[in-house]
Amino acid sequence: MNKPNNGQTVRDIVELFKEGSSTSEAYVGGCAKLIEESDSELHAWQHINSEQAIEAAKVCDENRRANRPMGSLLGIPVGVKDIFDTADMPTTYGSEAYVDNQPEEHCAVVEKLIEAGAVIMGKTVTTEFAFMHPSVTRNPHNRAFTPGGSSSGSAAAVAAGHVPLAIGSQTNGSTIRPASYCGIYGFKPSEGIISRRGALETSSTLDQVGLFARDLGDIAVLADSLAGYDHSDSNSYIDAKPPMLAGYLSAAPVEPNFAWIDMPYADQYSTDVAEGMEELLQVPGIRLDRLPAPQSFSVLIAAHKVIHEYEIYRALEEQRLEHPEKLSSTIQDVFVGAAAVTTEMYEEALEVRQGAIDWFSQFFLEFDAVITPSALSEAPKLGDSTGSPICSTVWTLCGLPCLSLPLLQGEQELPIGVQLVGSRREDDRLLRTAAWLVAHLNESD
Amino acid sequence: MNKPNNGQTVRDIVELFKEGSSTSEAYVGGCAKLIEESDSELHAWQHINSEQAIEAAKVCDENRRANRPMGSLLGIPVGVKDIFDTADMPTTYGSEAYVDNQPEEHCAVVEKLIEAGAVIMGKTVTTEFAFMHPSVTRNPHNRAFTPGGSSSGSAAAVAAGHVPLAIGSQTNGSTIRPASYCGIYGFKPSEGIISRRGALETSSTLDQVGLFARDLGDIAVLADSLAGYDHSDSNSYIDAKPPMLAGYLSAAPVEPNFAWIDMPYADQYSTDVAEGMEELLQVPGIRLDRLPAPQSFSVLIAAHKVIHEYEIYRALEEQRLEHPEKLSSTIQDVFVGAAAVTTEMYEEALEVRQGAIDWFSQFFLEFDAVITPSALSEAPKLGDSTGSPICSTVWTLCGLPCLSLPLLQGEQELPIGVQLVGSRREDDRLLRTAAWLVAHLNESD
Repeated sequence: MNKPNNGQTVRDIVELFKEGSSTSEAYVGGCAKLIEESDSELHAWQHINSEQAIEAAKVCDENRRANRPMGSLLGIPVGVKDIFDTADMPTTYGSEAYVDNQPEEHCAVVEKLIEAGAVIMGKTVTTEFAFMHPSVTRNPHNRAFTPGGSSSGSAAAVAAGHVPLAIGSQTNGSTIRPASYCGIYGFKPSEGIISRRGALETSSTLDQVGLFARDLGDIAVLADSLAGYDHSDSNSYIDAKPPMLAGYLSAAPVEPNFAWIDMPYADQYSTDVAEGMEELLQVPGIRLDRLPAPQSFSVLIAAHKVIHEYEIYRALEEQRLEHPEKLSSTIQDVFVGAAAVTTEMYEEALEVRQGAIDWFSQFFLEFDAVITPSALSEAPKLGDSTGSPICSTVWTLCGLPCLSLPLLQGEQELPIGVQLVGSRREDDRLLRTAAWLVAHLNESD
Repeated sequence: MNKPNNGQTVRDIVELFKEGSSTSEAYVGGCAKLIEESDSELHAWQHINSEQAIEAAKVCDENRRANRPMGSLLGIPVGVKDIFDTADMPTTYGSEAYVDNQPEEHCAVVEKLIEAGAVIMGKTVTTEFAFMHPSVTRNPHNRAFTPGGSSSGSAAAVAAGHVPLAIGSQTNGSTIRPASYCGIYGFKPSEGIISRRGALETSSTLDQVGLFARDLGDIAVLADSLAGYDHSDSNSYIDAKPPMLAGYLSAAPVEPNFAWIDMPYADQYSTDVAEGMEELLQVPGIRLDRLPAPQSFSVLIAAHKVIHEYEIYRALEEQRLEHPEKLSSTIQDVFVGAAAVTTEMYEEALEVRQGAIDWFSQFFLEFDAVITPSALSEAPKLGDSTGSPICSTVWTLCGLPCLSLPLLQGEQELPIGVQLVGSRREDDRLLRTAAWLVAHLNESD
C-alpha cells in the first residue's frame, strides 16, 4: 500500500509544518490525490470535498506563517465517521433515510479537532446506524475481505494511508475489531473522556468514541486533543482527564503486570489468533498471570445485549417507525428481538454492569492491563457480516479503555490485533503499558 | 500581611501535593483559617463553606494517593467572583435582588477549574451586577482604601493571601484596576478564549473573564486551564488557543518592542503614576517608541460607553423592571442615560470598535506590547467610587489581552500596576513579553 509520509508520525509531520519545511496544503493535497486514485475500489469515504479540505489546510499554513497559536494537530487531515455531525458536510449515519441530512452544528469531536488545528478531510463510511449490516468498504490489505465495522471507513482510510488519523465509535466492538482487521492502532478511551454531543445516539450507556492511527504516540496526541468535560453528555465526567501523551511517553516504574483471562468465547478463537497470542505471551520478560474467567463474564455478555437492544430500540424509534422501508434487514431483525426486552430486564442488566465495573476497579489494583485478542480471527471475507464484536463486549460494557495493537499476522497474511484493556479513567497507564509492551517486543526480536 | 506559603508559586505547591510532602487538606484548611481570622475586616468573601472546600481538598489528596489523573491546579483553592454560577453555592451577582439565588448548574469557568483539579474555595464579593457601585470589600494593604472593582473580593482575597488564585471579570476595567490597587497580577485574556457560559451577562460584546494571582507564571497556568472553545458563548472562537504557560516560559527571540501611547486621559495620571512610569521607561535596555495617540482613541472611549450602556440596559431588563427598589442609585442612574442610546448609535459604535480592532491588528505587527498605567493612581479612599476604569477602556473594547504587573508604589505606599496590552489572540506573546520585562527589571535593579 502506498502511504504518504510513510513511517512519519503525526508529531513528525506537525514539526515539519511548524518549521515551514513542508506545508499542510501539500500534505492534504497528497492525501486528496491518493483518495481520488484509490477510493473507487476501497469505498472508505462517504463524503469528501478536497477543495474545502485544501482551503482549510491553506488557512493552517497561513496561521503558521503569521505565528498564530498552533494546535497539536496543526494541518493534519482527519477522517470522521459519518455518524458525527458536521455543519459543512452531510451526515448520513450510513442510512438511506438520511442521505440528505445536513446538520446545523458541528459535533463536539469536530469542534475539538478544529481547535487542535486539524483539517476535516471528509466523512468516512459507517455501517447503517453504526450497527452490524456490512458497509460498502473493503479491507485495504485485501479487497476480498471486510475491514470490519461499524467504523469501516475510518479504519480502512487510515490503513490505506489516506489520512494519518480518523475518528470512529464503539458500542460493542466497532473500533477495536476494524483496527485489528486493518492492521492499525485502535483506541477506545474510557467512557466519559470524549464528548458524544452531536454524534448519533444508539445507546446512551454504551456508545463511546474511538480513534485510529498508524502510530501509538499519535493515538495519544489525538486522544489528548479530544478529551474534556462536556455537561451536555450524560456520560461525561468532570474530574481531571488522563494525560495521554504524557502516559505514552512515561517510563513504567516496574515491568507491567499483564493478565490473561480465559474468556467464555475462547473456543471461538481461530488457530492463528490462539497460536499468535500464545507465542507473544511466552516472550521472555512479560510478567503474566493466567486467570480463569469469573463465571459472571458470560452474564456480562448477556447484559451488554440487553442494554444495547433496550436502548437502540428507543434511540432509533423515529427511524424505526417513520422509515421502516429504508432499514436493512439486519437492523429490523434486531428491533424484533429488542421489542421483547423489558424494563425489568434492562434495569437488572444495568445492575450487573455496575457490579462488573466495581469488580474491575479492584482487579486493576493488581494488574496494569488485560491482554486478549482484538478479534476472533483475521478479517472474514466480504459477505453478510463485519465479523464478531465479542472480543470487545465485556470491556465496552464496563467503559474500560481498550487498545488494539497491530502485532500479529494470520494465515491469509491479514493483520491480527492484540488488545490491551486497562483501568477505567486510567488511560494514561494503559498507554504507558502498551508503549512498554511494543518496545519490549521490538527489543526481543 | 500573612500569606500562607508566601513566595511559593501554585506550581511549587502542586508539586508538593504530587510528591505527597504536603496535602491540599492542610493547605485549604490554612486558607480557611486565615479567611476566618481576617475576612470580618476585609469582606472579600460573599459566600464561603470551609467544610465543603476541605472535603473537596481531601478528594484531591485521595486522587493523588490513588495515582488518578491530576490536573494542573491539583488541590489549589480558587476564589470565584459571585457573578459566576455555582451549583453548590448561592450566586448573588452582588445584588439584593439575588440574595437567595441558587443556580442549578456550574458555569463553564467552574467546570474547567474542577476539571483542572482546583478546589472552589468560595464566592468572592462583586460590586452590584459587576458595575461601579462600591462593594463592602476593603483594600488589604490599607483598609481605608478601596480594592477597586468590580472584582473587588477576588483581588482582595488574592492580595491578602486567602487564596493563591481567583477569577474575576472585566467589561471595562474590573480586573486590571483592582489588580493594580491590590498589588497583584491581573490578566484579562483576549476575548473569546475563556467561555462566559453561566456568568452574569451585562454586555455580550464587552464582558470578558479576568484572572488574579500573586505570580505571573501562575496566571499562565490558570489561563491554560480555562481556555477552550464553547459553542454556547457568542464570543468564543474555534481556532487553536494561545499556549499560555509555554508563552510565559519561552525566551523572547529578540528584545521586545514596547509602545508608549499618549492616551487622551494622560492628564489625569497622578504624579506618582506619571513619574513611576517614566522612571520605568528609562531603564536601559527597554526598546520603546513613544507615539501620539491617534485622535480616534477618544472616539473609542465614547464607543465603549455607547455599547456598554446599550447592552447593559437590555441585559438587565428583568432586574430593571422587576426589582427597581433593590437597585443602587449608581446603576439606576446608568439606566436613565442608557435608555437614550439608540440602535443607530449602538451600531455606529460597533463599527468604530471593528475599525479599532483592525487598526490594532496592524499596530501589533510592529510592537509586542503597549506599556501603559493600569490605573490613574493608587487606590482611592473608600467612598462612593471604586476608582476610574478608563486606563482599561480602549483595550477592553477591542478584546485585546491585558496584564497588570505589580511593579510600582505610590505616595501612600499603596501599589500601582504597570499594564501591558498585547495583540488579540496572541496572549502567549504578551506573557512572553511580560516575563522578559519582569526579568529585565530584576536584572537592572
